[in-house]
Amino acid sequence: MTEITVELLESYCSNYRNWGRWGEDDQLGTLNHVTPAKVAESAGLVRQGKVFSLQLPLDGSGPQTGAFGRVNAIHQMVATGTDHVEGAQDWPMGWGVADDTLFLFLQGGTQWDALAHIFHNGKMYNGYDARLVSSQGAALNGIENHKAIVSKGVLLDIPRLLGKDYLDPGEAITAEHLDAACEFHNVEVGTGDMVLIRTGDMARRRGLPGWDGYSAGDSPGLSLLSAPWLAEREIAALATDTWGAEVRPNEIPGSFQPLHLVMIVNMGLFVGEIWYLDELADDCADDGIYEFQLVAPPLNIPGAVGSPVNPQAIK
Amino acid sequence: MTEITVELLESYCSNYRNWGRWGEDDQLGTLNHVTPAKVAESAGLVRQGKVFSLQLPLDGSGPQTGAFGRVNAIHQMVATGTDHVEGAQDWPMGWGVADDTLFLFLQGGTQWDALAHIFHNGKMYNGYDARLVSSQGAALNGIENHKAIVSKGVLLDIPRLLGKDYLDPGEAITAEHLDAACEFHNVEVGTGDMVLIRTGDMARRRGLPGWDGYSAGDSPGLSLLSAPWLAEREIAALATDTWGAEVRPNEIPGSFQPLHLVMIVNMGLFVGEIWYLDELADDCADDGIYEFQLVAPPLNIPGAVGSPVNPQAIK
Amino acid sequence: MTEITVELLESYCSNYRNWGRWGEDDQLGTLNHVTPAKVAESAGLVRQGKVFSLQLPLDGSGPQTGAFGRVNAIHQMVATGTDHVEGAQDWPMGWGVADDTLFLFLQGGTQWDALAHIFHNGKMYNGYDARLVSSQGAALNGIENHKAIVSKGVLLDIPRLLGKDYLDPGEAITAEHLDAACEFHNVEVGTGDMVLIRTGDMARRRGLPGWDGYSAGDSPGLSLLSAPWLAEREIAALATDTWGAEVRPNEIPGSFQPLHLVMIVNMGLFVGEIWYLDELADDCADDGIYEFQLVAPPLNIPGAVGSPVNPQAIK
Amino acid sequence: MTEITVELLESYCSNYRNWGRWGEDDQLGTLNHVTPAKVAESAGLVRQGKVFSLQLPLDGSGPQTGAFGRVNAIHQMVATGTDHVEGAQDWPMGWGVADDTLFLFLQGGTQWDALAHIFHNGKMYNGYDARLVSSQGAALNGIENHKAIVSKGVLLDIPRLLGKDYLDPGEAITAEHLDAACEFHNVEVGTGDMVLIRTGDMARRRGLPGWDGYSAGDSPGLSLLSAPWLAEREIAALATDTWGAEVRPNEIPGSFQPLHLVMIVNMGLFVGEIWYLDELADDCADDGIYEFQLVAPPLNIPGAVGSPVNPQAIK
Repeated sequence: MTEITVELLESYCSNYRNWGRWGEDDQLGTLNHVTPAKVAESAGLVRQGKVFSLQLPLDGSGPQTGAFGRVNAIHQMVATGTDHVEGAQDWPMGWGVADDTLFLFLQGGTQWDALAHIFHNGKMYNGYDARLVSSQGAALNGIENHKAIVSKGVLLDIPRLLGKDYLDPGEAITAEHLDAACEFHNVEVGTGDMVLIRTGDMARRRGLPGWDGYSAGDSPGLSLLSAPWLAEREIAALATDTWGAEVRPNEIPGSFQPLHLVMIVNMGLFVGEIWYLDELADDCADDGIYEFQLVAPPLNIPGAVGSPVNPQAIK
Repeated sequence: MTEITVELLESYCSNYRNWGRWGEDDQLGTLNHVTPAKVAESAGLVRQGKVFSLQLPLDGSGPQTGAFGRVNAIHQMVATGTDHVEGAQDWPMGWGVADDTLFLFLQGGTQWDALAHIFHNGKMYNGYDARLVSSQGAALNGIENHKAIVSKGVLLDIPRLLGKDYLDPGEAITAEHLDAACEFHNVEVGTGDMVLIRTGDMARRRGLPGWDGYSAGDSPGLSLLSAPWLAEREIAALATDTWGAEVRPNEIPGSFQPLHLVMIVNMGLFVGEIWYLDELADDCADDGIYEFQLVAPPLNIPGAVGSPVNPQAIK
Repeated sequence: MTEITVELLESYCSNYRNWGRWGEDDQLGTLNHVTPAKVAESAGLVRQGKVFSLQLPLDGSGPQTGAFGRVNAIHQMVATGTDHVEGAQDWPMGWGVADDTLFLFLQGGTQWDALAHIFHNGKMYNGYDARLVSSQGAALNGIENHKAIVSKGVLLDIPRLLGKDYLDPGEAITAEHLDAACEFHNVEVGTGDMVLIRTGDMARRRGLPGWDGYSAGDSPGLSLLSAPWLAEREIAALATDTWGAEVRPNEIPGSFQPLHLVMIVNMGLFVGEIWYLDELADDCADDGIYEFQLVAPPLNIPGAVGSPVNPQAIK
Repeated sequence: MTEITVELLESYCSNYRNWGRWGEDDQLGTLNHVTPAKVAESAGLVRQGKVFSLQLPLDGSGPQTGAFGRVNAIHQMVATGTDHVEGAQDWPMGWGVADDTLFLFLQGGTQWDALAHIFHNGKMYNGYDARLVSSQGAALNGIENHKAIVSKGVLLDIPRLLGKDYLDPGEAITAEHLDAACEFHNVEVGTGDMVLIRTGDMARRRGLPGWDGYSAGDSPGLSLLSAPWLAEREIAALATDTWGAEVRPNEIPGSFQPLHLVMIVNMGLFVGEIWYLDELADDCADDGIYEFQLVAPPLNIPGAVGSPVNPQAIK
């Protein structure tokens, strides 16, 4: 077994670095793998007309418990039906309205990371200077570059592959798992695909009374050793049902989320986290079909380094 | 020409009322028209693999100028690349992160109205009591009921039909315009379709220095007389490039957005506003194809009465 | 010992009701007891020139743990020194700026209740209809009525009276305790005074790792039986170092904060909570002086039902 | 007349620099001038028992119109009386509650600048590195250092001195004006005093329909030439009824708020802006007394670079 070291991390960073691959001014990263043909191909996967929403409810019941200073989304009404009924609104002809606001950490629930989300030694994807991300937002690599996201999606359900309900915190997913899952599910993963990797961790936690220890805590997830698989398959995007995609504790002692450096900073891979995959996974297990059209647009927030998303898996 | 009166409004409300049509506990409204077959049909419209984002940038440059107490979205960074470079972050191995928040009025930009958004004489869609929408949010008819939205989309470009760049404020769109546009664009609108109606108003305003007078101001838009067309075609959803879908000033003296009472409260029609249709419209004019797959999921915010949306029109 | 029942609560509500006492349009409540002479008298208590801030830090480390849907204050920077140093700001001549925002529940930390904060059977202080407090804010009894708050302050340190470090959750403070404290501290409490009652509960909790169970949880505090004392002394305001002033669990089975109905709804008493009294208490114990000038202005937020406050006790 | 140049600015910065004056770790700046004796003296100025609130209403009607990305404060209800009356709250025994939140730019209304608010060439007050103010807030010079603010206040009413209603935008106040106002009002300004300088600009603007052009716009205010007066009097704090204290347009071509560099960065002067001085000014004109106790505590927000304040002038 390959030893997981800082040197390995550095070799992955260097081997899978896509800086300049799509031009000096590229901000799309691996979404460049999604061609019009790929978009059209993805639509061809829609046969039954079933649609699955892959977003956790975005409200105060979400998974944030203080890590990184994040709080769950705060939804507030500014006009209500009780006001309407009580005459506290001033509209003609029996007309009434409800209105509301939301405050959210953009990566506090089901989300996409923008390519400006992670830095390594002062650089971000495509070699851009990290200082381009100031209090004014991301001048480059912001989420607005990815406002159209449609491709073929593939679900790899690792606990089903392993015959268990969920992976445990600390349980790492390697390239071997991913290949075995493809075979088990009878799917191929290739250029431009968006791969959804299910650990079962969210399903397990949704059965518990709260989310203690979810965000920033121990978790099953991708091993650093999965990096070659992610890079060589030329996938367009990756999403998991965990808070941080990677296995936790991280495999290199003293490190924090090292695979992010390979995936986001060097590959320019579009990464989603906290995706709700359970209902989709049940359906895939039922009909044996693990590929689908995946439409997952972030909000078009100029300069943002992440976005909530309500991904639609369409079969 | 039919006279536009309170009596007409009341007859429309009563004639096109769908309360109970899909059950006493329905919260889907006209989205019931979208069957699995319709979803599958919509995917069949994808031929070229082009994707258009129909969302205006969601930030401080948006169209809100104070009407209804709304402000534009406020995007704030909580971790930056400048901090990373200056050593103000405390992560190992050169790792750095950017993170951010957003505060928004859910209907302040490109958006969907939930069925809980509008009341009439103490009732909302399906006859539910308006008091179910309190400071705690919408107990019924909230946006979370519509977390999966996929169907065939049709663009009706009214200024192109009329040979002009845009409709003027106060210019009303009638059923006759809609029929003529269908013929002009060589499309049919039927059960379960989502209809995008372009007035050109947003294009005109985007050429001006600011958005003064946009929200709550005078606008081109749907005449109350379009109600029968909307109801009889059994469309699933409607969206426009204006702040409020209806022509303004409203056609019944002393009224405010009367068509909303027909559409949302009585029909249970899903209505989108402030959609950015110009780029899509140019493409439709180029290739002559005005129908496409439309995937437009709101955020899954329990109890919310509206949601931002980044609709994806896929051709 | 008087039995603490619903009937007792109702008799207190009725006996100590100040509705109309200061006019049919009064919104000041017991702050009417503060006359110019009282203000001048309070200044006379300043002898040593010591100033104590009685506000807990207002940030993410505050005492909110989810009760009532409240979260701790969220402080965010929108312009930073790291940006300035890195050239991410665009000002001439070496000029740079930091700027920031705060989102807060107005009663999430050291705070005043406005008289519009509590209702009883559809009424608030002075008999006003509770429906005057809508999503638009409080049309009457809002905090802006109390934008000037200066009077004599008196600290009653109950654990010091009892020779202990703190009162335990569930331990009730009665009129007898308050009288004994006055005698012990050699102070008199009379018309227009603002009384600060220390339980030691905050001191105890600040020694614990977090605030679990503080807000909405069990707590020492005022017995319902203290109501006559509060009313007959004609105090202008009351503040405690607990989240809710009253002893918890509440003394009437099945009730919630019944003394609030007497104090706020009926007396129109200005009530402060979550005050940081420990440093002041130490000083009072040192010099034996338990009275001082108290200047405690809320923010002038029109229509608000509460406000953060940084009270200044000046000796 | 002295020529107002970059060189003059630099000489002021250097001549009036208080870095190290109160120790290498000082974060109080000119508030060091406020001794206990000064606090006690200030209380002696209270004779009539009148209290004036010097805070503009803090809500959506405030003076922000987009400059610096700031918006006016957003006040939102999260529990209402209409909900209470309609049974949408779930409390026993007829109990009901209103609750609310506020989102604000800390310097969007009547406010104090913290010493961490302004930088010059990478430094802030006392020579601290500007990089200490990151997205995490101000590690030094934050507003929490000034949580107790009490001293003698003096109002200098410049338009009354000049026999006019208000100064015009661009009209500069010099040391000569300040000396003349002291003589005119029969007050002396000395060590530890807090000086309120009224231009009448807010009074003029409050008579207009909106605040267009207030924030960041042209304004009467202090000339750079007033710097020696401010420094040599050893005042503790300064506040004005304008958005930025200084005359605008600024006197050095191409500069932005140069006096801030002298006052805040070099002197460590505590500066307040957007103060509502008109009602106090009328009273001072009536009784001829222009000095008073001034109690003006900011909120104790750790790491904040500014704070709203409801200053209390007590005569």
